[in-house]
Amino acid sequence: MTPEPSLIGCIRPNIAAMKGYVPGEQLNDPDIVKLNTNENPYPPSPRVFEAIQAACTGDRLRKYPEPLGDTFRATAASVLGTSPDSILIGNGSDDILTILTRAFVPESGLIASPTPSYILYRNLAEIQGARFEAVPFDANWRLRVEDWPRDADLSFVPNPNSPSGTLLPPDIVRALASRVAPRPLVLDEAYADFAESNGLGLLAEAPNFIITRTLSKSYSLAGIRFGFAIARPEVIRELAKVKDSYNCDVLSLAAATAAIADHDYFTAVKAKILATREAMRPALTALGFEVTSSAANFLWCRRSDRPLKPIYEALKQRKVLVRYMNYDGYDGLRISVGTDAEIDRLLSELLAIL
Amino acid sequence: MTPEPSLIGCIRPNIAAMKGYVPGEQLNDPDIVKLNTNENPYPPSPRVFEAIQAACTGDRLRKYPEPLGDTFRATAASVLGTSPDSILIGNGSDDILTILTRAFVPESGLIASPTPSYILYRNLAEIQGARFEAVPFDANWRLRVEDWPRDADLSFVPNPNSPSGTLLPPDIVRALASRVAPRPLVLDEAYADFAESNGLGLLAEAPNFIITRTLSKSYSLAGIRFGFAIARPEVIRELAKVKDSYNCDVLSLAAATAAIADHDYFTAVKAKILATREAMRPALTALGFEVTSSAANFLWCRRSDRPLKPIYEALKQRKVLVRYMNYDGYDGLRISVGTDAEIDRLLSELLAIL
Repeated sequence: MTPEPSLIGCIRPNIAAMKGYVPGEQLNDPDIVKLNTNENPYPPSPRVFEAIQAACTGDRLRKYPEPLGDTFRATAASVLGTSPDSILIGNGSDDILTILTRAFVPESGLIASPTPSYILYRNLAEIQGARFEAVPFDANWRLRVEDWPRDADLSFVPNPNSPSGTLLPPDIVRALASRVAPRPLVLDEAYADFAESNGLGLLAEAPNFIITRTLSKSYSLAGIRFGFAIARPEVIRELAKVKDSYNCDVLSLAAATAAIADHDYFTAVKAKILATREAMRPALTALGFEVTSSAANFLWCRRSDRPLKPIYEALKQRKVLVRYMNYDGYDGLRISVGTDAEIDRLLSELLAIL
Repeated sequence: MTPEPSLIGCIRPNIAAMKGYVPGEQLNDPDIVKLNTNENPYPPSPRVFEAIQAACTGDRLRKYPEPLGDTFRATAASVLGTSPDSILIGNGSDDILTILTRAFVPESGLIASPTPSYILYRNLAEIQGARFEAVPFDANWRLRVEDWPRDADLSFVPNPNSPSGTLLPPDIVRALASRVAPRPLVLDEAYADFAESNGLGLLAEAPNFIITRTLSKSYSLAGIRFGFAIARPEVIRELAKVKDSYNCDVLSLAAATAAIADHDYFTAVKAKILATREAMRPALTALGFEVTSSAANFLWCRRSDRPLKPIYEALKQRKVLVRYMNYDGYDGLRISVGTDAEIDRLLSELLAIL
């Protein structure tokens, strides 16, 4: 008898059927050691604060920001050794992934990604009303190129991958790009700054490569939502049609520009995180975990002698938050690299629990 | 012979065929009197600066923001007399319009809006691969309800409208909602804060109403990108599945929350803008313009005795920027309400030109 269900009935069936992406828990308890969403444990560069301060004037806040972020593009291009018109700015790299989906994937088109991997790719397919195909990693976190659907309208390959932290070697990435050509292969490099190599060099080799980056992890800026894509300028021009006109705000643009320009700070933070990561792995192994070698700022931890979910729950009760992930029965703990003090706390709580 | 065109060939045809939305010029010359994009001429509330300052800590910047913006939702709900779960946050109201399109409009679906109006609605249809139907306003900026396509999957009705600044009376809005029911009627209230009435009261009457708002204009925050939707909670829950998980950043959320809470400042700025608007109309009329009575923070100015584009160009040369708009030959100047000093400058330059 109530009229309300009828508007709900007008929601597209692909949306109505969705469960929706559930982001990692964001608890507001300052005592929590938060190792669940791969945030950087160190603050952003001091220049970021100066830049936000300088941009935070009445005149800048009341006016629209630069639509294409030309100041950021010029700075990032110089840091990365590319051209400004090869860069598209995004409101986080999620915005970029959404733009790519809308530009390349028709309704009932096909998105492919590996599994276990970032589950947002499936949601992007669901929102677009497209199909989704997951290609399983083998036991060594490699992909069999012949398993990848040739006809995928859009292929997402996170490299390093989450939750594993593993890096696919360039020959597999090249072979995947060649298999789906001329269709796009997106290298989602959210964690590439923590790895020893990245795909920037491949851009010149294959015209169907697109790289996405975020400032959330390696630049300690998850709070300001900033990501970008790197691709050939003619592709960037098409993608720019799909983005909202002013998708990045004036303070985020200022923060992102200052962060990417401060290479010394970036290098120092990265070195600290890599040192902690390298110390974490043997320590967690000594506690009985099987820990995958990681090229990212987190570690994928499993064990066969006891279930993992109770360990996650016991840690949470002791105010140490890690991410319990379960892919159709294949489960594990994804633990972000924190400060040394945070990891000492993690290890001592684990010792008490196990 | 070059392989590049092939990736471009994979762009969806609806995107490739698009021209793309061209936002109003954003010139970086501080001497320019900028009356072309309906920005507020006054700075945001002092509390906005305090809130940004307080949120700008290393710990807030490095961590993800509140996914649903619960602090903003609670504050806005109390100001607007609605419930927090009736509110969806957006990265500008453009983000909200995009979310609505993706939630309700399938490929080859239909979006309807009036014309002349906000041209972004057509772009949203193009990006979605949907059809678009424009329903002409009559000479008095009213709509004939029987002209509206009953089967539109999504109807956008900006109220007040741009470029006219005119407000549709509630009986027409009600009749449009009833005509398209159960499908959604979106009242785009970007400018409603400058009008004497708005559609909030209609939400209780018709289950297919959705209202969108922005803080860009009436709260002087175009630079921080913040908008929101108001609808029934069960609709908001569906829309939340479509938005990016963290679509608003921590500084924008802090700024928006502080702005909407400072009702006294908002009221004072609004009063100044309405006073200037009421003085502008007779002054522009005296200069020979036909000026539509406006319920927004801009005026739509036409004249039959001489072409308008040269006037726009002459003003631009004299560093006064207004918006020249041309809808298939029906053209005019849309002039934002500035400070009194800015409008004095506009009028004196016009006097010199005409």
